[in-house]
Amino acid sequence: MLHKTPRTTPSRYANQRAHYDQEQIYAILDEALFCTVSYAEDNQPFSIPQSYIRVGDHIYLHGSVGSHFVRILSEGHPACISVMLADEIVVAKTAFHHSINYRSVVIFAKGEIVEDQELKYQAFKALTEKMVPDSWDYLKPMSKKEMDKTTAVRFALTEASAKMRQGAPGHEESEMDLPIWTGVISIKPIRQAPVPDEHGKKVPLPKHLLKSAKGS
Amino acid sequence: MLHKTPRTTPSRYANQRAHYDQEQIYAILDEALFCTVSYAEDNQPFSIPQSYIRVGDHIYLHGSVGSHFVRILSEGHPACISVMLADEIVVAKTAFHHSINYRSVVIFAKGEIVEDQELKYQAFKALTEKMVPDSWDYLKPMSKKEMDKTTAVRFALTEASAKMRQGAPGHEESEMDLPIWTGVISIKPIRQAPVPDEHGKKVPLPKHLLKSAKGS
Repeated sequence: MLHKTPRTTPSRYANQRAHYDQEQIYAILDEALFCTVSYAEDNQPFSIPQSYIRVGDHIYLHGSVGSHFVRILSEGHPACISVMLADEIVVAKTAFHHSINYRSVVIFAKGEIVEDQELKYQAFKALTEKMVPDSWDYLKPMSKKEMDKTTAVRFALTEASAKMRQGAPGHEESEMDLPIWTGVISIKPIRQAPVPDEHGKKVPLPKHLLKSAKGS
Repeated sequence: MLHKTPRTTPSRYANQRAHYDQEQIYAILDEALFCTVSYAEDNQPFSIPQSYIRVGDHIYLHGSVGSHFVRILSEGHPACISVMLADEIVVAKTAFHHSINYRSVVIFAKGEIVEDQELKYQAFKALTEKMVPDSWDYLKPMSKKEMDKTTAVRFALTEASAKMRQGAPGHEESEMDLPIWTGVISIKPIRQAPVPDEHGKKVPLPKHLLKSAKGS
């Protein structure tokens, strides 16, 4: 269970929708592929969508060595990292009661460059396997040169919280019997069959991508 | 074409990946359902995923009248709003060349409360129709009381840019002939068939949701 802080306490629905359970937070972080990373200069926020990977109690981001964004983050500016899985559109009898079923995480942390080469390698591997499960051993092994071209920045998962909404739409008692359809529409992404490029056409689809072709 | 500013010029791939064309920016904003809104206090950024709607040259967010977040935004703090459509995982011969095909928009703006009741109504309507196309006239009409319970905050689309990556993976000439599969895997969300809740079961599925059931 993570420690609740003023920054991770929402102003509304704090009891129903906010969660500090590590397992719940990590499950969301492991399912989502992308986060939005924000930092500020002179109170002007800058946000960038990024892929990321959780390894242990840290989130790892990767960026080109030359990237301004990565440099700023690695300098230890306070960052806010948010993740959202949009699961369902919640359809109510009134526009007012329409909602979204989602699972989100917000993290407050400062970045630090990953200097440890083994940690950096493991984070690359974990990110690749998250994007394309079971693919690491099939790919051309990562070279020292490729490692050096990329900066990995990590953020400790000490101040984080999850928020979620699940289930049916809310409604007013007085509206319950109106003949208007209510329910949910799933909008989760589902992986489609892999499509080869001109080089990929010359190579058989490997087993680990066959799995992905059947939906995950 | 929007005016390019230092804040909307990325440090890398500025020529290949950054776009200032209004039509491109608006197309992304109209396709995505969610954005991440950030503001900062004492250079500490705070980010919240939100649904939103573009109407004309503004983005509209809705929030409960009591929400801290909405209050802060409506006070005119500098905000950064980012949107990302993750389209495809780009599978290369090396982990290093793996990538994501995406379309993203970043907006810098200050929020203002929408006091005009007609504008506020139209933004509600547009948001509802974006979430569930053609549903507005079918729902119980929005009441004055419901309008009053919600604050709408809008942001002008004057300083914004789009970034995108599309197409096949990059590769080194020397790796081109390695027998490793390359291509893309689509990860776009596709709407699934509507699922009724206990009240929805008693009502026939309306025509506009039948369409959604066939995928959009």
